[in-house]
Amino acid sequence: MSQLINALAAREPHGKLEPFSFDPGPLGPEQIEVEVEYCGICHSDVSMTNNEWGFTQYPFVPGHEAVGRIVGVGSAVPGIANQPGNPMGKRVGVGWFAGSCMGCSQCLSGNHNLCQTAEQTIVGRHGAFATRVRTNWGWAVPLPDGLDPVSAGPLFCGGITVFNPLVEAGVKPTDRVGVIGIGGLGHMALQFLRHWGCEVYAFSSNPAKSDEIRKFGAHHVVNSRDAADMAHLNGKLNFILSTVAVDLDWNGYFSTLAPKGRFHFVGVIPNPVPVPVFPFILGQKSVGASPLGSPATLVTMLDFCVRHDIKPMVEVFKMSDANAAFEHLESGKARYRVVLENDLT
Amino acid sequence: MSQLINALAAREPHGKLEPFSFDPGPLGPEQIEVEVEYCGICHSDVSMTNNEWGFTQYPFVPGHEAVGRIVGVGSAVPGIANQPGNPMGKRVGVGWFAGSCMGCSQCLSGNHNLCQTAEQTIVGRHGAFATRVRTNWGWAVPLPDGLDPVSAGPLFCGGITVFNPLVEAGVKPTDRVGVIGIGGLGHMALQFLRHWGCEVYAFSSNPAKSDEIRKFGAHHVVNSRDAADMAHLNGKLNFILSTVAVDLDWNGYFSTLAPKGRFHFVGVIPNPVPVPVFPFILGQKSVGASPLGSPATLVTMLDFCVRHDIKPMVEVFKMSDANAAFEHLESGKARYRVVLENDLT
Repeated sequence: MSQLINALAAREPHGKLEPFSFDPGPLGPEQIEVEVEYCGICHSDVSMTNNEWGFTQYPFVPGHEAVGRIVGVGSAVPGIANQPGNPMGKRVGVGWFAGSCMGCSQCLSGNHNLCQTAEQTIVGRHGAFATRVRTNWGWAVPLPDGLDPVSAGPLFCGGITVFNPLVEAGVKPTDRVGVIGIGGLGHMALQFLRHWGCEVYAFSSNPAKSDEIRKFGAHHVVNSRDAADMAHLNGKLNFILSTVAVDLDWNGYFSTLAPKGRFHFVGVIPNPVPVPVFPFILGQKSVGASPLGSPATLVTMLDFCVRHDIKPMVEVFKMSDANAAFEHLESGKARYRVVLENDLT
Repeated sequence: MSQLINALAAREPHGKLEPFSFDPGPLGPEQIEVEVEYCGICHSDVSMTNNEWGFTQYPFVPGHEAVGRIVGVGSAVPGIANQPGNPMGKRVGVGWFAGSCMGCSQCLSGNHNLCQTAEQTIVGRHGAFATRVRTNWGWAVPLPDGLDPVSAGPLFCGGITVFNPLVEAGVKPTDRVGVIGIGGLGHMALQFLRHWGCEVYAFSSNPAKSDEIRKFGAHHVVNSRDAADMAHLNGKLNFILSTVAVDLDWNGYFSTLAPKGRFHFVGVIPNPVPVPVFPFILGQKSVGASPLGSPATLVTMLDFCVRHDIKPMVEVFKMSDANAAFEHLESGKARYRVVLENDLT
């Protein structure tokens, strides 16, 4: 194995991904190195490539939904998440986070995902559109037996984003729940919620997708553009998960919340969401939001996926075709998540 | 005892309260009748008197923070809240609610305060600025031994409004909490939270009240108009309770929330509150709201008050001076809650 990592990088905003090699330097004492087999593509890879958030460093290597085998172990690594001992050769996933301080009160409480100094796989460092990628040991999460490695990558970013709220907001199997936006995130949320035991409503503005949406687990598909459909749900839902990244008529959705109902954002919305206080008081309603989950929640999610045969629906491209895969994702035609099979050498 | 009830009523919006007698008709089978000894005044009595919410019926008798003894018991009353058996002669409180259906899923779950058909003491019926007032049995809550009857009335509306969120939002004794608005509601919230075990911050725009605010239980008084004071609290508070009825710089307060921090409204705000989704996602923050509590929570609150000697700070007027008491409340000078001692005959 050469020390050099061969990757795909953009040199500027909106630049094509082109071959790029770099020397990663010595492996840190708490780091592990993973030989990438597969890597999912997330919208944030596109956003970072195009410097939409203003902190991209070029050359920029995307990729933070990686699956692969451990090929390097730092001198102070005590094991990987949930598996003490030498992890050499184990198959793991690496997601959005690649490190956290382990010592702040959030890390000490198991909320490593809320660590103020958490390291992010593609922020200020190189991602997994590459032969190898590095992460701190706590964020390398072993794939359980029975989990398909080809489609597992998206679980480590999109999947955990929609699974984490079910744990953190205490969604109950007896709850009536809704999912807004049935795309890369939403199609996983439907599977999780169906197997969580809930009665599941999918909000969609595209009735043509109804049959597929039901296959993912929705009991009911609601046309969010149909006022009568929406009015029928007034006061009914205990929990609503919004995965979209656009402004919607939030008040219409808030009206569908039951007493003590909770509305939860995982997608970033362009504008502040106007919360009407009086109906929230009368119905004891709330609005919350959350980021990706902790290592412990990742372990729990993967177990849940194996038990219930939950997997992202993916389309596979060769990693050398990453530019075509990006275009496919940006066209809005991806069904529902894109994974790159590594053919870089 | 005459069948007639002698009361004070407004005949029109902004009208003075004047003597008014009415025949309440036969006592309903599930009702109890209370001879009013004391009745607190709440801002909503003023709002209803002036028809600010558009559904006041005249003549209008205010009063929904009543304390008194039971003098009439309907034929089907099984007891009062938390006390089975014949309640004749017992001293009880009657608050904002005077009935709930007892059979809907909210009532059956103990959330009678969220019953869609709950009856309200001064909505479409006559309140407790009167010799007697009626309520359904479940909402007549016995005063425990050791609770001062003179100051207890405000607990049944203002008090339960700020106590209920501590129970419902699961505030922990280890939490760092803030209270916005140290008036009729806020001064009770400070006492509850101090005895709940929390580290208590009071937000005030009036530093002249600081010493008094500390006496109520605040460990720290924060000048909400001082940017440096506010910045010092960045990311620190686990729970913030807003008791005010005006629009404030909510973003400034949201910034003071710790990861997983919760902001809770009990005061109605004129305009929708703009919630910025991105920082809420990063910090897993939420915004909630709630109305008054259930009968069971009222019972719990009263026990907590006796155990910790918590009581509203009140100024007492004769009920025949109700107009002067209203003016005092409207002037903003009340410290902190006004109670009427019944001298109607």
